[in-house]
Amino acid sequence: MSTSGISRSTLQRLPTYLTYLKTLPEGGSPYISATNIAAALGLGEVQVRKDLAAVTSGGKPKVGYVITDLIRELDQFLGYTDLSDAIIVGCGKLGRALLDYQGFSQYGLKLLAGFDNDPKAVGITEHGQKIFPMDKLGSFCSRNRVSLAIIAVPAAHAQEVCDLLVESGIRGILNMSAVHLTVPKGIAVSNENIAVSLAALAAQVENHRRP
Amino acid sequence: MSTSGISRSTLQRLPTYLTYLKTLPEGGSPYISATNIAAALGLGEVQVRKDLAAVTSGGKPKVGYVITDLIRELDQFLGYTDLSDAIIVGCGKLGRALLDYQGFSQYGLKLLAGFDNDPKAVGITEHGQKIFPMDKLGSFCSRNRVSLAIIAVPAAHAQEVCDLLVESGIRGILNMSAVHLTVPKGIAVSNENIAVSLAALAAQVENHRRP
Repeated sequence: MSTSGISRSTLQRLPTYLTYLKTLPEGGSPYISATNIAAALGLGEVQVRKDLAAVTSGGKPKVGYVITDLIRELDQFLGYTDLSDAIIVGCGKLGRALLDYQGFSQYGLKLLAGFDNDPKAVGITEHGQKIFPMDKLGSFCSRNRVSLAIIAVPAAHAQEVCDLLVESGIRGILNMSAVHLTVPKGIAVSNENIAVSLAALAAQVENHRRP
Repeated sequence: MSTSGISRSTLQRLPTYLTYLKTLPEGGSPYISATNIAAALGLGEVQVRKDLAAVTSGGKPKVGYVITDLIRELDQFLGYTDLSDAIIVGCGKLGRALLDYQGFSQYGLKLLAGFDNDPKAVGITEHGQKIFPMDKLGSFCSRNRVSLAIIAVPAAHAQEVCDLLVESGIRGILNMSAVHLTVPKGIAVSNENIAVSLAALAAQVENHRRP
């Protein structure tokens, strides 16, 4: 099954369903309803039905979903992608932490390697991930047909790295720096700056305070 | 000036304007138009005007903005917040990398300390940030009137930590774990799981490929 056309928010909730279903006690009912899932996770029923329709056609009126089938379908869905390989450019603390982060595999993603222009950063991380010098980037990406990259370099170098990634055949860029990247048409960029997210949250909290 | 009512996407672009304006050569025109800013950053003109209206009333027809005024206003705006203090719970690699990350200050944010239930994690980071044991969380938050927290613990402990944070007076939570958090009304949660973002990007890239 393809992940095309699935919204980001649905994609974000799918692992939640999977985790929840896997924690259900064995020996109970083999079925579960959207109503019960919604109540357990504090979500709307309509939303649950819509989310699960992306991965299964198995929900039946009055009966619900077969729990084991739904777990298998979610597992398959989240494990599936043609584009599972990614690299990371910028192997400072954040980059290295991401390289060694175990949470990518549950989405069928694999960080193949890191790249850095500092010779001191080149080598192997604590968990055995490789970090190469920048001049290996192009050949590595084409040899491994990598489509995805994370940019975790300082703001001043982000655009330059971005240009290099595009030249190297990267089609999707997760930009963790706080700068706007200019890319050719057809290249997807997603901005994920943690400081920006925290600032947005601060604004939201303040908003609550001053009604 | 308050950040209330500013959209997240505007907030995300403001530092981009500031960085761009600060790189303009000295000795040029003291004015800049929204049209020129938009062209330089690859943004829409209407968007630029709208974004900047959040921080300044200084844009004049046919003249544009006074560059030095706009820089000062953006600086002030981004540095302003009553809620600048945050903590982070979970000081594994990612948590420690964030504690030492220098990028929060440009948004007027400060990570005061980290907390972890592993005695081995407790201590001081490379950049001198303190990591306390979990039993100090409540008293620390109330003494320092902290409103914001980042959760960077493994999924299995995220809800438990979230409950503790809410009890400790935290009003905004940046959730980096891949689980759905249940919170009382009035508590803001923002989900920021990097694996989810990369998976969403993978889906988008795949979408492009199969028109």
